[in-house]
Amino acid sequence: MLSKKASCDQSHGQDSPYFLGWQEYEKNSYHEVQNSTGIIQMGLAENQLSFDLLESWLESNSDVLALERKGRSVFRELALFQDYHGFPDLKNRLVEFMAKLRGYKVEFDPNKLVLSAGATSANEILMFCLAEPGEAFLLPTPYYPGYDRDLKWRTGVEIVPIHCTSSNGFRITACALEDAYQQAQKLNLKVKGVLVTNPSNPLGTTMNRDELNHLIDFAITKRIHVISDEIYSGTVFDSPSFVSIAEALMETSTDDADICNRIHIVYSLSKDLGLPGFRVGMIYSYNETVVAAATKMSSFGLVSSQTQYFLSNMLSDKKFTRKYVKETQKRIRKMKEMLVSGLRGAGIGCLKSNAGLFCWVDMRHLLSSDTFEAEKELWKRILFGFGLNISPGSSCHCSEPGWFRVCFANISQETLQVALRRVEALVESFGDNFNHQRTVRNSRRSRPSLSKWVLPLPYDDHEQADR
Amino acid sequence: MLSKKASCDQSHGQDSPYFLGWQEYEKNSYHEVQNSTGIIQMGLAENQLSFDLLESWLESNSDVLALERKGRSVFRELALFQDYHGFPDLKNRLVEFMAKLRGYKVEFDPNKLVLSAGATSANEILMFCLAEPGEAFLLPTPYYPGYDRDLKWRTGVEIVPIHCTSSNGFRITACALEDAYQQAQKLNLKVKGVLVTNPSNPLGTTMNRDELNHLIDFAITKRIHVISDEIYSGTVFDSPSFVSIAEALMETSTDDADICNRIHIVYSLSKDLGLPGFRVGMIYSYNETVVAAATKMSSFGLVSSQTQYFLSNMLSDKKFTRKYVKETQKRIRKMKEMLVSGLRGAGIGCLKSNAGLFCWVDMRHLLSSDTFEAEKELWKRILFGFGLNISPGSSCHCSEPGWFRVCFANISQETLQVALRRVEALVESFGDNFNHQRTVRNSRRSRPSLSKWVLPLPYDDHEQADR
Repeated sequence: MLSKKASCDQSHGQDSPYFLGWQEYEKNSYHEVQNSTGIIQMGLAENQLSFDLLESWLESNSDVLALERKGRSVFRELALFQDYHGFPDLKNRLVEFMAKLRGYKVEFDPNKLVLSAGATSANEILMFCLAEPGEAFLLPTPYYPGYDRDLKWRTGVEIVPIHCTSSNGFRITACALEDAYQQAQKLNLKVKGVLVTNPSNPLGTTMNRDELNHLIDFAITKRIHVISDEIYSGTVFDSPSFVSIAEALMETSTDDADICNRIHIVYSLSKDLGLPGFRVGMIYSYNETVVAAATKMSSFGLVSSQTQYFLSNMLSDKKFTRKYVKETQKRIRKMKEMLVSGLRGAGIGCLKSNAGLFCWVDMRHLLSSDTFEAEKELWKRILFGFGLNISPGSSCHCSEPGWFRVCFANISQETLQVALRRVEALVESFGDNFNHQRTVRNSRRSRPSLSKWVLPLPYDDHEQADR
Repeated sequence: MLSKKASCDQSHGQDSPYFLGWQEYEKNSYHEVQNSTGIIQMGLAENQLSFDLLESWLESNSDVLALERKGRSVFRELALFQDYHGFPDLKNRLVEFMAKLRGYKVEFDPNKLVLSAGATSANEILMFCLAEPGEAFLLPTPYYPGYDRDLKWRTGVEIVPIHCTSSNGFRITACALEDAYQQAQKLNLKVKGVLVTNPSNPLGTTMNRDELNHLIDFAITKRIHVISDEIYSGTVFDSPSFVSIAEALMETSTDDADICNRIHIVYSLSKDLGLPGFRVGMIYSYNETVVAAATKMSSFGLVSSQTQYFLSNMLSDKKFTRKYVKETQKRIRKMKEMLVSGLRGAGIGCLKSNAGLFCWVDMRHLLSSDTFEAEKELWKRILFGFGLNISPGSSCHCSEPGWFRVCFANISQETLQVALRRVEALVESFGDNFNHQRTVRNSRRSRPSLSKWVLPLPYDDHEQADR
C-alpha cells in the first residue's frame, strides 16, 4: 500500500558505509576523558573551527538574537513572514558574500537567488526543474554520497558517472565527459546536464580553468545544463584560488547566447559558516524560468524567518565576514597540514588539496587486493579495530579501490593527534607483511602515470605531482 | 530544456483567484492612515490575534531567544544540529501539545512524529510515501487551494474531488465517498487514500463522529489510507468539541488490524500559534515504514535548530500554553461573531462554524447567474470595487457557485469594521435590482433542502439549520 520510495530504500543509499560508519560512531563516540577508546568521527564534513568568532559576534550583537531592531521587537514581523521570495535584505547580503568569496571578480543579482532549507533541498529542486523522471545527470566520480538521495530518490532522475581517476589527480577531462555521455546513450538515458562540486567534495580540490572550459564547451555542444555546487567556496585555504563557474562563464566566448540559461549554482552556509543546523541553502540561476519555478518549489523547504533575520544581520557586518573568512581559512589550512603531515609520517599520502574540510587519502597500499571488497575490509578494520570513522571511496562511487575521505575540521587538534596515533598503529599492525605487500603491489601496477600516486613517494612530491 | 513542472504551471495553480487576490492586495494594501482606500486582506488565514501573549512570554524568557541555557550559550550545539529526527525535547513537547488540544482523550508517541518545514512539506512527503505518480487521493470539496501545489505538483499524484454540497452543510457522506471512488475508477486512477482537513479549511467546521466513522469504514472497505490534516485543531472556539481521527480510530472496532497503518495526521504550528514564518510542520503516522521514510525525506525541509530550540522551550511552559490556547480561542470566537453579525446586518449568511480563522460565506443571492463565471464577476467586483480580498469558492474547487472564504483573524477589529462597512456598500450597490434578482433566483431554485441556505433567512436559523 506504500509507494516504492517508502517501502524500499535502494536509491536513498542509506546502507552505504558512509552512513553506517556514522551509526557506529553514534553507538561508541570518542571522548578524551569519558570514552578515550571510542570511535573518532572523521566521516563528517563539519566546520567547527571558528565558533569562537561567531559567538563573539553574537555577544556584541545580542539584540539580533533577541529579535530586536533599534530597541523594538520584530517578533510579529518574523512570525508571519513566509514569503517564498525570502528577506530582500538577506538576499542582498548573500550575493555580496558570494561575490566576496570569489574575489569580487563576479557580481550576483539577488533576483536570481532562491532560498531553500539547505543545499540538499536546492539540489533536489534543480532536478525537479531541469529533468523528467528517467532523464540523466552526469556526475564526476568520486562524488558526495548524499547525491544519490538528493538528486535521484524523489525525482526519479538517474545519475551517470563521469569516471575520473588518480592518473591525472581525478580531474575532469573532455574525454571522460564524452565517455559518460556515450554511456548514457547506451543506457537509453537522455542527458540533461552535468553536476559538479567545486571545490570538490570529497577531493578537496578546486577546478582549474581548463576543466571549467571543457565543462562549458561540453554543455554548449550537447545543449545541456551545468549545476555547480559551490558550497565549499569559502574553504579555499591555498592557491590556486577559487574559480567559480560564474567567472568562467563570464570569460566564455560563444555563439550560444543561451548557455547562460543553462548554468546554475548551488550554495549554502552549512560549510563556510559552519551552520548546518540552521538550514540555509540557495540556488543561483541565470535562467528566469528556473528562478520562478524554484521559488515556488521553495515552499516545500523555506528557511525559518527567525534564522533569516539572524543571518542577514550577521552578514551585513562586513568587517566581521572579512575576518571570519580569512581566519577560518587559516585554521582549515593548519588542520589540513597537521593531518597530511601525520599521515605522511605513517607512510600514507593524500591527493594535493587546497579546499574543503577533508583530505582524499590514498591507502591503496594497505589493501589486500585491488578490489572494493578489500577496501571494505580495510574500512571495517579501521573503524572497528582502530576507532576511526572515515569514508571509503566506494561510498563516493570512486572507480579505484583504496581511497578514503578523511575529515579534519569537526575535531580538535588534540583529537586529531589521537587519530594520527591510531593511524600509525594501523599501519604498524600490517607489520612486515605490509612492506612485502606494498612492494608486490607496486610492481604489479602497470599504468606509468599511476606510480606517482603510490607510496612510498615522499609527501611533497606526492602533493605536487598533479600541479 | 526544462522539465514540464518548471516550464508550465498548470498543476501549481498559481493563476487561481486565491493567489491573484493576494497579488492585488500587495499592490494596494489597506492602511487605516496611509492608504484607507486600499484592499483589505481577508484571503489569508493567519492568526494574528495573540501575539501579545507570545511577546510577553518572550520578555520573561529572554534567555531562550539568546540561545542560553542556565547561563551558558547553546549556540554551537544548535549550529551543528541537523539530525533529521529533530530535537527529542521538541517532539515530546509537541505530542503533549497535540494531546492537550484533543482534551487528553488520545496520547501520542514522539517516535511516530516526523518534523518538516511546514505542513506544505508534510503533505507532500506523505504523497511521496503513499502513492506513485498517476495514483489518486480523494479530497472533499471545497478544499484548501494550496493542495493542488502541495499534493500534485512534484509528486504526480492526482486529486479526485468528493463533492460535498450545501444541502447538508458540506458534510462528507458515505455516498459522496463512494461516488468519488467510482469517478476515479472511471478515470482509470488507482485510489490510494482520502485526505481531509479537520477542522475544515475553508468551512471552519469540525467533522462529527458520523463523518469520521464513514471515513474510517470507507478506508477499511477500500483498503486505502486516510490523511487527516488537523492544522487548525487549536482554533476550535465553540461546541461541538474537536474529534481527531486519532480519537475516532481508538473507538473503531474492526477486524482490519492493519487500518492503523493507514492513518496519518498532519499538524503545524503556523495556525494554532500564529507562526507560519518559523516553518514548523509535522507528520504523525501510525505506520512505522512511513515514519522511517518520511524522516529521511524530511532532509529536504528540516526545521532550523534555532527555531526548534525556541519552540521546545516555549511549549514546555504548560501554564503558558494553557492560557494561550484558551485566550486565543476566545479571541477567535469574538472576531468570528463580529464578522457573522456584520454580514447578517448586510443580509449575508454564513455556514455555521466552530473553528478556523475564516467563515464560509454565502453570497449566492448576489450572483447574476448560478455559474462560476458570475462568481468570478462578483469576486472581481468585491476586490476592485469594494477593496476586499476574499477567496471565491471556485478557488477551493467548491461545486456550487456563490460561496466565499472570508478570513478574519489577520486583521484588527477596526479593520474588520471597515470591511463590514464595505460589505454593506457592496450589497447596497445592487439596489432594487438586487432585491428583484433575489426573489427571482430563489423561486428558480428547486432543491427543497437548499432553501434553508438561501437568504433572506434570519442569521440564527441559518446558523443552526445544519445542526
